[in-house]
Amino acid sequence: MSNNIVEEFNSYRAKMNDAIMEDNNKIIKRIFNLDTNAFTAGALDKKTKELLGLVASTVLRCDDCVKYHLEESHKAGLSKEEVIEALSIATLVGGTIVIPHLRRAYEYWDAVEQEAASGL
Amino acid sequence: MSNNIVEEFNSYRAKMNDAIMEDNNKIIKRIFNLDTNAFTAGALDKKTKELLGLVASTVLRCDDCVKYHLEESHKAGLSKEEVIEALSIATLVGGTIVIPHLRRAYEYWDAVEQEAASGL
Amino acid sequence: MSNNIVEEFNSYRAKMNDAIMEDNNKIIKRIFNLDTNAFTAGALDKKTKELLGLVASTVLRCDDCVKYHLEESHKAGLSKEEVIEALSIATLVGGTIVIPHLRRAYEYWDAVEQEAASGL
Amino acid sequence: MSNNIVEEFNSYRAKMNDAIMEDNNKIIKRIFNLDTNAFTAGALDKKTKELLGLVASTVLRCDDCVKYHLEESHKAGLSKEEVIEALSIATLVGGTIVIPHLRRAYEYWDAVEQEAASGL
Amino acid sequence: MSNNIVEEFNSYRAKMNDAIMEDNNKIIKRIFNLDTNAFTAGALDKKTKELLGLVASTVLRCDDCVKYHLEESHKAGLSKEEVIEALSIATLVGGTIVIPHLRRAYEYWDAVEQEAASGL
Amino acid sequence: MSNNIVEEFNSYRAKMNDAIMEDNNKIIKRIFNLDTNAFTAGALDKKTKELLGLVASTVLRCDDCVKYHLEESHKAGLSKEEVIEALSIATLVGGTIVIPHLRRAYEYWDAVEQEAASGL
Repeated sequence: MSNNIVEEFNSYRAKMNDAIMEDNNKIIKRIFNLDTNAFTAGALDKKTKELLGLVASTVLRCDDCVKYHLEESHKAGLSKEEVIEALSIATLVGGTIVIPHLRRAYEYWDAVEQEAASGL
Repeated sequence: MSNNIVEEFNSYRAKMNDAIMEDNNKIIKRIFNLDTNAFTAGALDKKTKELLGLVASTVLRCDDCVKYHLEESHKAGLSKEEVIEALSIATLVGGTIVIPHLRRAYEYWDAVEQEAASGL
Repeated sequence: MSNNIVEEFNSYRAKMNDAIMEDNNKIIKRIFNLDTNAFTAGALDKKTKELLGLVASTVLRCDDCVKYHLEESHKAGLSKEEVIEALSIATLVGGTIVIPHLRRAYEYWDAVEQEAASGL
Repeated sequence: MSNNIVEEFNSYRAKMNDAIMEDNNKIIKRIFNLDTNAFTAGALDKKTKELLGLVASTVLRCDDCVKYHLEESHKAGLSKEEVIEALSIATLVGGTIVIPHLRRAYEYWDAVEQEAASGL
Repeated sequence: MSNNIVEEFNSYRAKMNDAIMEDNNKIIKRIFNLDTNAFTAGALDKKTKELLGLVASTVLRCDDCVKYHLEESHKAGLSKEEVIEALSIATLVGGTIVIPHLRRAYEYWDAVEQEAASGL
Repeated sequence: MSNNIVEEFNSYRAKMNDAIMEDNNKIIKRIFNLDTNAFTAGALDKKTKELLGLVASTVLRCDDCVKYHLEESHKAGLSKEEVIEALSIATLVGGTIVIPHLRRAYEYWDAVEQEAASGL
């Protein structure tokens, strides 16, 4: 099942986020908190912000961050065409070393779409 | 004159882009060409694309790229508030090492606004 | 079988490259096309270009890009000694954070040599 | 068993380090040698140096380097609180793209502590 | 006067930090606030934290961040030998591309020492 | 005089390298020593190694390292066409954020050629 990669990512992410929150380091907790705030609608809407997070994550070549923002982009109602256009800018700006991350992003997006379609 | 930093950047950029184009390396010319195409409106509008270019440039900490996209963002009609909100995401994702570039981005944005206001 | 890592990499790469090409984003397709052109012989020969691609990939710490260029270097007839000398420069320039990628590069090179020796 | 990730990392690391040493590239061998020397006590004590290695590895987002320095930090007698405080600085300086590495660092630290507690 | 580089850096930094604070973006202000909190003594003392900030800044090759942490390291009472030992680890981990930043760090440290000696 | 940028770079580099060598940190001195050794002819010739150093420096976006390797490439007898072809690979692999460094590389190469032509 290709949507296993979605569940696998989310379950590890949730488990370790819990461990981090319980550990109670004040600086880390505030950074997590800021991360939630920064992506709520403001002068820019939610969709635009998710694309910004996606492109930043992609050029910095952080697969887990890309996965997270792909899922949030899907929830925010962005289309595959919009997401890929954002990724094309990331690939141009960040260079061909971004391509392996692009491969995994395509795979993950499809898994996110399948999971959504299956009504889970 | 604070808008000198705008003129200085643009004149050096134009001079060296000319030197690069004259040199006629096919790969480099095509990358320049792609750079123009990637930021024209498509599934995403021009404003969104400029913000994506700005955020990618900021997290990769490329001052000249930031300057270029700040000017293009201004031309595309983005407000300072929208631009700063994009930069706030870049600073959160890229960390406090982005802050020196944020300082220069604030300075450059003001210079761009002043130049526009002066009718040049 | 240590050459499984070669087959595994190539089969995932081929599958996802197909998915990307079918998706038909013009910017991404042109970048893929440039990638092919840039590594054909010109003022510099194929061997030199592959070493340049390998070193660029290594200092940017992109394992998949390293794998790709190791295989292309082998096909181009570069010896292990030449490849390792290139990797030694990458490790010096890029620092000890390159070492984990160096470990995986040594492993992959050996798998590539074994696959070639087995006549596959 | 969560300490499997400790054994798995160390056994691959040891095997490939051996392969690299046998290969006998002089530059690479000297870099490995420097790596040992740089972390011995000098003007700064061992604990401080391990934290410096840990933070450098974390902001450069090198999971294997983080694992190595977590284990060395534990051996040097650093507490979890000290290690996490160092990681909180790395996350602030390096940004939220460090967070996936932070998750894996928390997991690895716990595995290191468990392995030590089990008397292995 | 070699200490001009200290004054020049601090005056630009202060001016632009003021401009950023006045602009009142909530995310950016909180990041600035976290930056102050993260470097106060906790499980780790002030000196150790400044060295962590210095090494993180150096391997990420952020000259302005290096300058800031050099000055804070001096104020915290760290000796040149301790600071250089931290920078030697940064150069080893980050590679020879760190060397240009090392040159500027040596120059800046001397300017900081001279400024302090002159009783300013 | 456009060759002033060559003299300016070399004189600052020489002055600060002297200051670093006098300071006598053993790790740093050995890294400097390795840097000299790594670029002498071995399995790969001097020209190829300089191109590897140039491309590594360019994708890591280190202007001073690029300047140094441009000059060494010129001394080693590499032509502008060969150097630019190497830089085109760096721009493709590293992305459009490399372009500002490409501009400065073109400018510096011309200054190096002029200085050589003037018989200095």
